[in-house]
Amino acid sequence: MNTNVKPEDLDVGFDVPAIPGMDEADIQTPCLVLDLDALERNIVKMGDYAKAHGMRHRVHGKMHKSVDVAKLQERLGGAVGVCCQKVSEAEVFARGGIRDVLVSNQVRDPKKIDRLAQLPKLAENVIVCVDDIDNVAELSAAAQTHGTELGCFVEIDCGAGRCGVTSTESVVAIAKAIDAAPGLRFDGIQAYQGAMQHIDSYEGRKEKLDAAIAKVSDAVEGLKAEGLEPQLVSGGGTGSYYFEANSGVYNELQCGSYAFMDADYGRILDKDGKRIDQGEWENAFFILTQVMSHAKADKAICDAGLKAQSVDSGLPFIYGRDDVEYVKCSDEHGVIADPQGVLKVGEKLRLVPGHCDPTANVHDWYVGVRNSKVETVWPVSARGKAY
Amino acid sequence: MNTNVKPEDLDVGFDVPAIPGMDEADIQTPCLVLDLDALERNIVKMGDYAKAHGMRHRVHGKMHKSVDVAKLQERLGGAVGVCCQKVSEAEVFARGGIRDVLVSNQVRDPKKIDRLAQLPKLAENVIVCVDDIDNVAELSAAAQTHGTELGCFVEIDCGAGRCGVTSTESVVAIAKAIDAAPGLRFDGIQAYQGAMQHIDSYEGRKEKLDAAIAKVSDAVEGLKAEGLEPQLVSGGGTGSYYFEANSGVYNELQCGSYAFMDADYGRILDKDGKRIDQGEWENAFFILTQVMSHAKADKAICDAGLKAQSVDSGLPFIYGRDDVEYVKCSDEHGVIADPQGVLKVGEKLRLVPGHCDPTANVHDWYVGVRNSKVETVWPVSARGKAY
Repeated sequence: MNTNVKPEDLDVGFDVPAIPGMDEADIQTPCLVLDLDALERNIVKMGDYAKAHGMRHRVHGKMHKSVDVAKLQERLGGAVGVCCQKVSEAEVFARGGIRDVLVSNQVRDPKKIDRLAQLPKLAENVIVCVDDIDNVAELSAAAQTHGTELGCFVEIDCGAGRCGVTSTESVVAIAKAIDAAPGLRFDGIQAYQGAMQHIDSYEGRKEKLDAAIAKVSDAVEGLKAEGLEPQLVSGGGTGSYYFEANSGVYNELQCGSYAFMDADYGRILDKDGKRIDQGEWENAFFILTQVMSHAKADKAICDAGLKAQSVDSGLPFIYGRDDVEYVKCSDEHGVIADPQGVLKVGEKLRLVPGHCDPTANVHDWYVGVRNSKVETVWPVSARGKAY
Repeated sequence: MNTNVKPEDLDVGFDVPAIPGMDEADIQTPCLVLDLDALERNIVKMGDYAKAHGMRHRVHGKMHKSVDVAKLQERLGGAVGVCCQKVSEAEVFARGGIRDVLVSNQVRDPKKIDRLAQLPKLAENVIVCVDDIDNVAELSAAAQTHGTELGCFVEIDCGAGRCGVTSTESVVAIAKAIDAAPGLRFDGIQAYQGAMQHIDSYEGRKEKLDAAIAKVSDAVEGLKAEGLEPQLVSGGGTGSYYFEANSGVYNELQCGSYAFMDADYGRILDKDGKRIDQGEWENAFFILTQVMSHAKADKAICDAGLKAQSVDSGLPFIYGRDDVEYVKCSDEHGVIADPQGVLKVGEKLRLVPGHCDPTANVHDWYVGVRNSKVETVWPVSARGKAY
């Protein structure tokens, strides 16, 4: 060890995987790559759809956790703002300049409620979900402490089996409490059917959404009867937005994955029986990986394993290749079946991960590529913001 | 929006989940909690075992990615240094003061090789694995450029099916090339049988290790015949270290998970048929989570989902509880079956995740707890260092 050398003397740079202007081939791996053309087309397409159907589109920022992507969705896709799942994410979006932020989740910890109640000082509009009447007083007290106003959605469990109340009676009771609480504003209903998004068949998804819409309609009628017509009825994802958009009940969509696409969403089928990544949406989100070993003739080892992705929804596929297959994953290794021995050490491949949201959450950077050149490097702004 | 308010005026603090001195009950969730007593006992126990068996213990830093945990392993467990899987991880450990660092993996990208070749300016000893004779010239050139020396292990695939050569002939050929290359030093053999670590039965694991040891012995004899006796023969994990330690061939262990324990390792059986988390090792690593919704009588929703853990090796279990069970996971939600309705909103629970390594990699902080008080907060120093 040369004791005159300091860490900062080493020419290793920061761990940014790329620099604008660089060739795609020189990007350090494993890292996230966005095909900017495909991303922009996806964003424009969904924006046009929402507009044509008279729907607001509140894009789901928990998918990408990126202020830059959210702003692109506002600019090119007419997004009205974002939703996200955690207070710490909402802080990142509000600080980054997103002016309308929904925390599409319950906030129950006193410290988190306190943080949430400060956010309207920064964003124009902050909304949170409520599924327990006891939460109303907690939120109201914090908003009063900070002299702010929080919008509130009553969350209905319309089939996802997570948070949310299940009866119109409960919806009305909570809405009344919100309406009466100082510092709070009753804004409407949160009703996202998360459990059906990944059902392969269009008819299978439609059946679940029909049930969800019936439940939400009943709640809306119940609220109207009490003079509490909801201003917003919000929900819908990449596997269902056409159902909500044509329901006559919902007026706000919350799609996320459409912008990036992933392997698990890609395999669901549209109404013509075609995979949605074969026409409806383009793959815009990839893990770039490099072959680092090929000591066995029929097997290549790449550098993207469990620490470069989440495999909860299955393994990634190798984009644009049917001669090689990603077959196994350990912490830092991916095993690629290469029966013909076509891959070379050093070669780079684009993987389409099984599930985009938790895959984005292990990376610090998005490398935006156009025409095989790096155009931009964006931080995954809310990475790890789980509080 | 109050336009006089700047982001920094909001009293939201940094996203550190805890402050030393705080009660465990006040820690912000979801976050990683280390039971410091259990962690220290695990570290001392493995250190004592290695010493009693005349083995060096090079702890696997890719498991925890923490300079602080590695230093504890040096101090309490007599660790001789760390191994890790990526050059960017090795940089973090070397900068943090770990003086002996092995990259237990192949390094093939020119930029990564250049970074690696600079590291001996900072650490006393830097070793890397080689499984392709072409890599020898690449490493040698970079070491000469920087005027440094890199130690090299030839990697044998002794059953893991990832990187590594499979014949003694290849081991000897690569070792000779290393020995002849300026800037490189032949240090020995890397032989980690990763695929067998999670086989439940002790006899099942023993059978795989017997085969691995036979293969490594053959390679050692082949090297000796060429006058290239390996100084170090390194390998062994939490599911196998007693086999390597009693093999008469290995002299260095590379255990990682023993220090933290996780649900998947915990269920493998020792030679008496007892789960290894029921005596051999203690659970020292938890995700602290909070109940945020209980709108259904028999189901609680907690705040630790896919973005707080990796479920590649199964769902977490709830520590110390058999009345409630973590049964389902989505991005930001965990569903807990609570048939008797015993959980309350706001209540905190310790989860033992399925797989510690990729779970640590999604978090920024470890909160060290002793006697229900926060004693320390350590960064996950090499989080996201995947390059």
